[in-house]
Amino acid sequence: MELLEGERLDDLQNGYWMIQDRKDFCYGIDAVLLASFARVKQGERVLDLCTGTGIVPVLLKAKTKGKHFTGLEIQEKSVDMARRTVEYNHLENDITIVQGDVRGVDDIFSGTFFDVVTCNPPYMISSHGLSNPYLPRAIARHEILCTLEDVVRESAKRLPPRGRFYMVHRPFRLAEIINLMMRYKLEPKRMQLVYPFVNKEPNLVLIEGVKGGNSRITVEKPLIVYEKPGIYTADIRRIYGE
Amino acid sequence: MELLEGERLDDLQNGYWMIQDRKDFCYGIDAVLLASFARVKQGERVLDLCTGTGIVPVLLKAKTKGKHFTGLEIQEKSVDMARRTVEYNHLENDITIVQGDVRGVDDIFSGTFFDVVTCNPPYMISSHGLSNPYLPRAIARHEILCTLEDVVRESAKRLPPRGRFYMVHRPFRLAEIINLMMRYKLEPKRMQLVYPFVNKEPNLVLIEGVKGGNSRITVEKPLIVYEKPGIYTADIRRIYGE
Repeated sequence: MELLEGERLDDLQNGYWMIQDRKDFCYGIDAVLLASFARVKQGERVLDLCTGTGIVPVLLKAKTKGKHFTGLEIQEKSVDMARRTVEYNHLENDITIVQGDVRGVDDIFSGTFFDVVTCNPPYMISSHGLSNPYLPRAIARHEILCTLEDVVRESAKRLPPRGRFYMVHRPFRLAEIINLMMRYKLEPKRMQLVYPFVNKEPNLVLIEGVKGGNSRITVEKPLIVYEKPGIYTADIRRIYGE
Repeated sequence: MELLEGERLDDLQNGYWMIQDRKDFCYGIDAVLLASFARVKQGERVLDLCTGTGIVPVLLKAKTKGKHFTGLEIQEKSVDMARRTVEYNHLENDITIVQGDVRGVDDIFSGTFFDVVTCNPPYMISSHGLSNPYLPRAIARHEILCTLEDVVRESAKRLPPRGRFYMVHRPFRLAEIINLMMRYKLEPKRMQLVYPFVNKEPNLVLIEGVKGGNSRITVEKPLIVYEKPGIYTADIRRIYGE
């Protein structure tokens, strides 16, 4: 397989490789933490919304015994890179990349349910402060083509009772996240805050919801990223080594 | 002043003393952390619901320039101890202890608003597993005489627009807490999780709501209690030294 200009192959250290392009939006630690936080049991089917270049399905395929992984992505270039990544790793039977809009999930997957939905959505509200809201990076980072509510509502529709929803997001939106999850019956059941350093505010939150679950949440131990600048903690080294 | 049988005087290390009785429910680190987390500005009036023996008003009087502090408590024995604590410390002009039911706040304080409401409510749901739900400890710990919803709803009624609400609670109820606060327009604005050790699940959550605030929450750095068993962290030593 030939890489296109500007592309590179990243070694995931789990037997798989990812096609990435520095010019566009590369996956970050948030996708890796989401894949680590999500629980997928043997035989389960997983839908990953806002899949980008497909990092979450590839990581979940590597670490779980899930039966099949579907990634939905709206941007054509990301879809193309994700599909070539799937081919490069010979995962055509395990991972399907679908091009489409989160807000169109009902049409695309009408009547289909998944055991698990994962999502690493755009974090920033609207297109405020952007010079060009149609650049790939802007679409991946800002709620231009899908909002938090779109993600939660459409995820809830694709999950049967007891189906599980996993999302990574920014803590400043935590109240909204919990409120929306409860509104759409994805009861928050497990949460972990990710603190860059032990004495800093968290910059990511990982959350699990269960469709129709009862009202009791487990907040996990803090996940601290760096022991000191440039040095990952043992927890993070373990996650990257999975 | 004479202490009653079984009572003792606890030195708060801030110039004030608390009457406590080991047989009943003594204040704990949660009340101390709540008083440290709450922000009271010069001249503000504060209402503390479920005040028990009055620990939060006394600590807030010591650390802030608030104008007046009212503590509401339903249990007669706690009210009596709280009132004698106020007298012992010559705080009669600063702190008023009112006996009454959180669910009756509307009648007791009809037409009165406070700048700040604080609350360290019972944490446990209903009286499940209790042999005698009318024991003082049971009432202080279980939602027998007031529920989380009672606390949030009645607090919201006593706060004007921009008024502030502070509560300490258990993390397993975080989703409910956020949901109720948003339902009663006490927008969650600041939150801190209290972890007993850096590698353990949190056992307390501190939360601030602003009446009619916008939807954006600051999650603060983790508050870790122990460096190692029996040894407080510098953060906790600073809070106790306030």
